[in-house]
Amino acid sequence: MITRMSSLFLRTLREDPADAEVPSHKLLVRAGYVRRVAPGGFSWLPLGLKVLRNIETIVREEMDAIGAQEIQFPALLPKEPYEKSGRWTEYGDSLFRLVDRKGADYLLGPTHEELFTLTVKGEYSSYKDFPVMLYQIQTKYRDEARPRAGILRGREFVMKDSYSFDLDDEGLERSYQLHREAYIRIFDRLGLDYVVVAATSGAMGGSASEEFLAVSSTGEDTYVRSDTSGYAANVEAVVTPVPPEQSVEDKPAAQVHHTPGTPTIETLVDFLNNADMGRTFTAADTLKNVLVKTRMPGEKEWSLLGVGVPGDREVDLKRLEASLAPAEIALLEDTDFAANPFLVKGYIGPAALQANGVRYLVDPRVVRGTAWVTGADKPDHHVVDLVCGRDFTPDGIVEAAEVREGDPSPDGKGSLVAARGIEIGHIFQLGRKYADAFALDALGPDSKPVRITMGSYGIGVSRLVAAIAEQYHDDLGLVWPRAVAPADVHVVVAGKDETIAEGGERIAAELSERGVRVLLDDRKATPGVKFADAELIGVPTIVVVGRGLAKGVVEVKDRATGERTEVAVDSVVEHLLEVVRR
Amino acid sequence: MITRMSSLFLRTLREDPADAEVPSHKLLVRAGYVRRVAPGGFSWLPLGLKVLRNIETIVREEMDAIGAQEIQFPALLPKEPYEKSGRWTEYGDSLFRLVDRKGADYLLGPTHEELFTLTVKGEYSSYKDFPVMLYQIQTKYRDEARPRAGILRGREFVMKDSYSFDLDDEGLERSYQLHREAYIRIFDRLGLDYVVVAATSGAMGGSASEEFLAVSSTGEDTYVRSDTSGYAANVEAVVTPVPPEQSVEDKPAAQVHHTPGTPTIETLVDFLNNADMGRTFTAADTLKNVLVKTRMPGEKEWSLLGVGVPGDREVDLKRLEASLAPAEIALLEDTDFAANPFLVKGYIGPAALQANGVRYLVDPRVVRGTAWVTGADKPDHHVVDLVCGRDFTPDGIVEAAEVREGDPSPDGKGSLVAARGIEIGHIFQLGRKYADAFALDALGPDSKPVRITMGSYGIGVSRLVAAIAEQYHDDLGLVWPRAVAPADVHVVVAGKDETIAEGGERIAAELSERGVRVLLDDRKATPGVKFADAELIGVPTIVVVGRGLAKGVVEVKDRATGERTEVAVDSVVEHLLEVVRR
Repeated sequence: MITRMSSLFLRTLREDPADAEVPSHKLLVRAGYVRRVAPGGFSWLPLGLKVLRNIETIVREEMDAIGAQEIQFPALLPKEPYEKSGRWTEYGDSLFRLVDRKGADYLLGPTHEELFTLTVKGEYSSYKDFPVMLYQIQTKYRDEARPRAGILRGREFVMKDSYSFDLDDEGLERSYQLHREAYIRIFDRLGLDYVVVAATSGAMGGSASEEFLAVSSTGEDTYVRSDTSGYAANVEAVVTPVPPEQSVEDKPAAQVHHTPGTPTIETLVDFLNNADMGRTFTAADTLKNVLVKTRMPGEKEWSLLGVGVPGDREVDLKRLEASLAPAEIALLEDTDFAANPFLVKGYIGPAALQANGVRYLVDPRVVRGTAWVTGADKPDHHVVDLVCGRDFTPDGIVEAAEVREGDPSPDGKGSLVAARGIEIGHIFQLGRKYADAFALDALGPDSKPVRITMGSYGIGVSRLVAAIAEQYHDDLGLVWPRAVAPADVHVVVAGKDETIAEGGERIAAELSERGVRVLLDDRKATPGVKFADAELIGVPTIVVVGRGLAKGVVEVKDRATGERTEVAVDSVVEHLLEVVRR
Repeated sequence: MITRMSSLFLRTLREDPADAEVPSHKLLVRAGYVRRVAPGGFSWLPLGLKVLRNIETIVREEMDAIGAQEIQFPALLPKEPYEKSGRWTEYGDSLFRLVDRKGADYLLGPTHEELFTLTVKGEYSSYKDFPVMLYQIQTKYRDEARPRAGILRGREFVMKDSYSFDLDDEGLERSYQLHREAYIRIFDRLGLDYVVVAATSGAMGGSASEEFLAVSSTGEDTYVRSDTSGYAANVEAVVTPVPPEQSVEDKPAAQVHHTPGTPTIETLVDFLNNADMGRTFTAADTLKNVLVKTRMPGEKEWSLLGVGVPGDREVDLKRLEASLAPAEIALLEDTDFAANPFLVKGYIGPAALQANGVRYLVDPRVVRGTAWVTGADKPDHHVVDLVCGRDFTPDGIVEAAEVREGDPSPDGKGSLVAARGIEIGHIFQLGRKYADAFALDALGPDSKPVRITMGSYGIGVSRLVAAIAEQYHDDLGLVWPRAVAPADVHVVVAGKDETIAEGGERIAAELSERGVRVLLDDRKATPGVKFADAELIGVPTIVVVGRGLAKGVVEVKDRATGERTEVAVDSVVEHLLEVVRR
């Protein structure tokens, strides 16, 4: 196939668009792949649509290869199933809602768990029908608060979402692994540099959820990885290594000290080190107790929760939230302190909390035998050498403390470093949440109903175009990996001479006959303009047909390496076939 | 490729769905191609999606072949461009409107004239850039008052919409013809029985608009065709043949008669035939004058309009509307009669209308020299022998009278018969409506701006699945034409014997290796169930591998003709390859 630039609907831009911040956005607009139509809404111009379709094809092939079956749902969906699952309200402002001419409520689907569950329930009923994996490649909608970075975070985007339905946990694990392997093949074929990060701490059991992040400094997702091993995880999913327990026998007794004017960790440590106590304290020796309130979904009443973390760390609310999920958490208001006078701001200790029935969870570092400086539950007083397991016994542990670069890697190998990535895939063992909501059962061999367990798996297909562009570009423009490039070979006719134009046409025609996708620059433009556009557009192999043709040679340029080779015009098609198939 | 029914996400139904009225809806649901998700919203199950994709591919190939370039817009669109074109309000309740989290107005695109116009304006500026043709295959939304007939009239559907941009009328005509020819190739390849009907009376110039209708008794669109020639047209587009003018000299003078109690044509004709007038009158001899009011878009004031049609015909408001477009029309209310006392209900004649400055248009049959019985503008009085061109001179002619079966065909060949069809395509010379709205100009060779002229062209891609099913089915199920069938060959393993299963597998594998798309019924089900499903699903060629295998034969059945052939198992693959490629 030959795409002629003389008639291609394409105008490249020399300037970056004013609203673009990240390289992929700048280059995809400048090279004429996409255009902005609305906040978070883009049109795909011919070259962009080719890249998008190439990615879709790879995703489809790998999904088919694991036995997943493609179907397609509407994007415009009735409210009822989403009300039943709770997502109609849970999604909040991120859900596009609308009302039809008859006053019925509708939404634009963000993902389709509800519909897939209902459809499987509608078709299947026997244990013999399972397992089944279904997917769609479909336009999705989310009313993002801040659509950004072009197609990296749009409000209308293309997603592959798939769902697995199994009779038991082993089946779910199998479906999950099939998807995991398919995703690895997909992202490998796309040439991406990516990491698979644990997305939950594993409280729900093993690899309940993992994210695929394309490594990129412009990514929105922060993750940590070991500087030594292959360990990588979402910050929310980092499991703090637990130090060994210590004996409580040989520790000095707890002592309450008058520590006037020390409501913060910093003032406290200063005070202690200025007092003549015969030893030096650091913030890590203190136990900071933070109060929040929590409630489970559907509950009306909030309960107080105390969270104890080493004083050198802040509580990371996203980590705390992930640890306590599905419970909601909220910060305390003044009225809460007023209603609970035992909470002495700045001087809260475990004693008053537990005496007043407040659940008290601590950081995993707070193990039996560790001694802490913490609040003594009255103004201007702290207790020193309060020993865990002797002077107080927490109600449990919680991952709430911030993760920092330099922290030991949870796998025991090396230290953590922070990195940024673009979420391109997410695999998730849903379990029975939706099966419960819609009573999705299969009749077992014993004629008893078996509740189905589900997985959901997503790939941001349109986002991948931008993620690849983030990793594959240079100062001059895009540098597509061959698997997704809008063409295999970019033939540039460089010169006004009729024979040069004919030479370009002939090479393009021969390549096309051999199944090579050719972009032919047959425009009336200067070689300089054509070269700049070829670099910008980023087809992997560029053939310059110019003055050398008189001597029987053309120039073949590798867009990625910049390497130029003079090739005899008689053998250039064979040469290019080899390059393309490499 | 082999699709195995043992794992295919498919459950066929023996009963018609309760809400289905037309055969395509019943069969597509029963055979497991689609499922209803919401009013006018359907999901595509695996077999349905295959058919839809096959159609998309044919449409894409033919659009590419005429040089149209594929791009893709969002479905969620900002209000502003549609406000500028007027369609934000013109579309009325049929437009899905919504508000985003910031309170901005959005819509779900019904078609994309505005966005294509703006995009071309954004990229192109010189006359050298034109012509250009762009298209998309995309999900569209219309809040139909009565979604019906399954995917024939949904609220979310797949459409191919394309747009041509030309510098002049000749260019537009060329782009229009290119589309017309592409549409003919597409619908021919799909095996459809269809007609191309004139969609407007040609007042805007020649073939300004044509519709492609799949012939179907269940279609929503009524059209007329000649019983003799190839003439076909929308009822709105029928041009009434004009009878020859007559001399006004030899006609008797007009006489006003007292015709008490004759406010209707029927009572009038009865009265006249009972009066001793020496001749017989029919309704066709009377001239019925109907009053409406009209105004042009943007006007506030309504004007009265008198429409005179032969008394044996009703005024067809859709035809009148099409004739007067873009003017709005409305029926008169009592207040209008009160405000215009010269309008004597039941006895209105041309005289009072024209004396009071009311525009008066007549049916094309009312030519010079024709004599009429019509109202005398006072109660209980009519005038007989009122001769056009002698006693009154209309302000013009108008196509407003109903079209009836038996009317002479406008091309002079035969009579009209009414027929029904499903609109599957529409090609339309838009002209400069949108170019004017968005000031889409190209700088001409003389540096003066040239206003672009546009065409818009649509194909109902998802509707085609149903339109084809309407034409290709029988009592037992669907009977797909090969070009769109979900598979080429349906291999039925009919028997529990291990060798039979192996035989089926072998044939399927060999066919698949040779590029044939195979649906393999490898389920544990009785032959009866499998045969019924094969008929219902409608793959064009069915191979039954059963007991005959022991004797070295299998049965090949043509789904359409029902013809069965015993074929030696050794040569069946070659035989089928020939059938498939035929």
